[in-house]
Amino acid sequence: MSSEIEKNDKNELEEYNKRLLDDILAQDDIDRFREEFLAIHEYEQSEYFENTTLENRQKIFEFLSPKEVAEFFDQLEIDEEEYEDLFDTMDAHYASKVLENMSSDNAVDILNELSKPKVASLLTLMHRDEANEIKDLLHYEEDTAGGIMTTEYISLDADTPVKEALMLVKEQAPDAETIYVIFAVNTTGQLVGVLSLRDLIVAENDAYIEDIMNTRVISVDVAEDQEDVAQKMRDYDFIAMPVVDYQSHLLGIITIDDILDVMDEEASEDYSRLAGVSDIDSTNDSVVKTATKRLPWLIVLTFLGMITATILGSFEDTLSQVALLAAFIPIISGMSGNSGTQSLAVSVRNISTGEIDEQSKFKVALREAGSGFLSGIVCAIILFIIIVILYRQPFLALIVGGSLTIAMTVGTLVGSMIPLIMNKLNIDPAVASGPFITTINDIVSMLIYFGLATTFMSYLT
Amino acid sequence: MSSEIEKNDKNELEEYNKRLLDDILAQDDIDRFREEFLAIHEYEQSEYFENTTLENRQKIFEFLSPKEVAEFFDQLEIDEEEYEDLFDTMDAHYASKVLENMSSDNAVDILNELSKPKVASLLTLMHRDEANEIKDLLHYEEDTAGGIMTTEYISLDADTPVKEALMLVKEQAPDAETIYVIFAVNTTGQLVGVLSLRDLIVAENDAYIEDIMNTRVISVDVAEDQEDVAQKMRDYDFIAMPVVDYQSHLLGIITIDDILDVMDEEASEDYSRLAGVSDIDSTNDSVVKTATKRLPWLIVLTFLGMITATILGSFEDTLSQVALLAAFIPIISGMSGNSGTQSLAVSVRNISTGEIDEQSKFKVALREAGSGFLSGIVCAIILFIIIVILYRQPFLALIVGGSLTIAMTVGTLVGSMIPLIMNKLNIDPAVASGPFITTINDIVSMLIYFGLATTFMSYLT
Repeated sequence: MSSEIEKNDKNELEEYNKRLLDDILAQDDIDRFREEFLAIHEYEQSEYFENTTLENRQKIFEFLSPKEVAEFFDQLEIDEEEYEDLFDTMDAHYASKVLENMSSDNAVDILNELSKPKVASLLTLMHRDEANEIKDLLHYEEDTAGGIMTTEYISLDADTPVKEALMLVKEQAPDAETIYVIFAVNTTGQLVGVLSLRDLIVAENDAYIEDIMNTRVISVDVAEDQEDVAQKMRDYDFIAMPVVDYQSHLLGIITIDDILDVMDEEASEDYSRLAGVSDIDSTNDSVVKTATKRLPWLIVLTFLGMITATILGSFEDTLSQVALLAAFIPIISGMSGNSGTQSLAVSVRNISTGEIDEQSKFKVALREAGSGFLSGIVCAIILFIIIVILYRQPFLALIVGGSLTIAMTVGTLVGSMIPLIMNKLNIDPAVASGPFITTINDIVSMLIYFGLATTFMSYLT
Repeated sequence: MSSEIEKNDKNELEEYNKRLLDDILAQDDIDRFREEFLAIHEYEQSEYFENTTLENRQKIFEFLSPKEVAEFFDQLEIDEEEYEDLFDTMDAHYASKVLENMSSDNAVDILNELSKPKVASLLTLMHRDEANEIKDLLHYEEDTAGGIMTTEYISLDADTPVKEALMLVKEQAPDAETIYVIFAVNTTGQLVGVLSLRDLIVAENDAYIEDIMNTRVISVDVAEDQEDVAQKMRDYDFIAMPVVDYQSHLLGIITIDDILDVMDEEASEDYSRLAGVSDIDSTNDSVVKTATKRLPWLIVLTFLGMITATILGSFEDTLSQVALLAAFIPIISGMSGNSGTQSLAVSVRNISTGEIDEQSKFKVALREAGSGFLSGIVCAIILFIIIVILYRQPFLALIVGGSLTIAMTVGTLVGSMIPLIMNKLNIDPAVASGPFITTINDIVSMLIYFGLATTFMSYLT
């Protein structure tokens, strides 16, 4: 026991399992392998499988039953493009049995990554009922409630007597994803109530399910976005959320462990967008692959940057008369970019949490601009004082300060409005990433700065 | 039933509840209020409470028992600074009973926001056992396992017979945060096993807990960071994680619903850091408050920006000879900032998920620099071609392209190394926010650009 606790450190535990199991597999000791491997948690099994050799994986498929493999395949986290290879190394019949024994939502996630012909042949080899269930699930969009739900839930007729219910729950238990939330349906399969296993256990023996169930059911529509589902489950503290069609027929459930993954995925996505990286979590990519992934973005930004350069080039006269103007280009564009990114972050966050309604979103955008103006003035005053002290040019200081204030106001407005407008137009706000906003703000702020400088040129020289 | 489902839309449901309950409270109809209010989900109750008037809140305290209020106070989400006011409006005796009936982890969260004398007086009014439990919890750091755990769990002696166990579970059920995970302890209170309610239900009647429990217990140390706890619960798909001291004594449990909040909090934090905003989620702040919150950062950045300006000012001669050099300042500083932010995002993400070990982190940093160099070359070639076409100045194009390549390589290195170094030095990586990295990269890239330009001046004029 105490040795377990000491091994609680994630990496150490992983190392320990790996060394032990590698050794055993090297000796082809099937009994010892089964003993040690099946004793560790499915998550650790999946970790070991992910990090071991192809040869060892083959041995695992030899030593374990499809059902045993299914247990840890439910937890497998490998890159999407690796699934095709993985299933190529498995006997098709064996593979179909593994998928059959997995939770339907996880099986569907894997099938979504495989080629069409492979999916078709695997489905043919599966048990008919399982295959049909999975075919249904494959129809739903990946990031909707339907795409992440599982069909392995416990449901009871609303008129079941409590004293029979526990037996029925036990019967359905082996296949169910969770037995702690029980769904009550009417004769046509419509969801009419929910109860927890806790309610059932403490209920009077002579009651019926409909007496103890909660009829104010919170459910999600099968087409609802996974992010909204996550928000709802977080609000209501559910461990399982029922998924229904437009006629309230119960189609499946979404369990809390899947929601943790959704939240992580969505947070990663928002974060990557802000940084302008498409795929933040693959740490094993080569230098060339990393560069290739980021280049499209960087090339777009290069061209956008050339717009700024061309604009500045057209002010060459102004620049050659007062070269010092160039010294303040980075600070003006930088501050406008910074405040723009701040507003972008707030705006994107407001859109994705859905906490506030349409009207308030624009109110928030205006507030952002107001705060940009205020902060702009404060920073401008500081800048004004420094420039007067360092360069003794109050008029230059005035132009720089004025430009900073305007650029920061416009910057915050751009940062907060663009994602809102895109969202309204149903354009993916991914385009409004941090670097994009920054580059737009570069262009705007330089036009303001050199526009002002050129206009008041006579005072500067 | 169907009307419930139609009201599934969050905002509509909220509106509906608000109008209904406001009306009833206006009529002082205590019976109808209790009927309607207690029928809705605790989350909706808390939403209503958050958005209603002070007068209505007072009525709620009058109409409901402390236990009923505790139910939805467990879900309350108001700004940290509002708790003091909220508890000022409550009778101290009533308030202490509310806290007593809340989950201990949530009560502690609230007490952490109240002033010391108020906490002391509330604790005095509480039942002794409850008060002592809460005093213990108040000692732990807020963002550790101890700070988010609750002491309301179900534990059984390992030598309890299965046929008695269900009775004991039922007895402990009313106070327990979850009854679905049961913890087995030995006579000295050390955690020796876990089992699920499911295991218990399907177990043979003549077995003992120690026969059916899992002895390979995964637990977290009471001092462990909440982010690591979240990661572990996600990995293992737990709905409750036991918290132990260094001698394996069971101290409390952390339930999955609290982990959802932790994940949201941590994601928000990472996101805000990248954008350089301290507090992203408060949508109700005034313009002045928003500006005040962001100004400290922006003022620091203004001073940092003045370093860039001063450096550029020292190249005034170079600039006045070739004014066109200024045109490419934004693109070079911008691209170096963009690629730096991308690397920063990857690096921060690697630190916070803890997926890879120390050594690999630096390997990743080097890979980032490599990819920065590669992308830099590609963008530089594009830029070179455009400049030659537009301005017919191949040497200027060479200097701009060369600077871009070096600036992007250094930028990615800075972006990925700074958070790693800070993490190693145990400095809060919050300082390494996006705008900070961008500004550092501004300084570095301008030194490179004008260093090169001044060195090869003779070729430019």
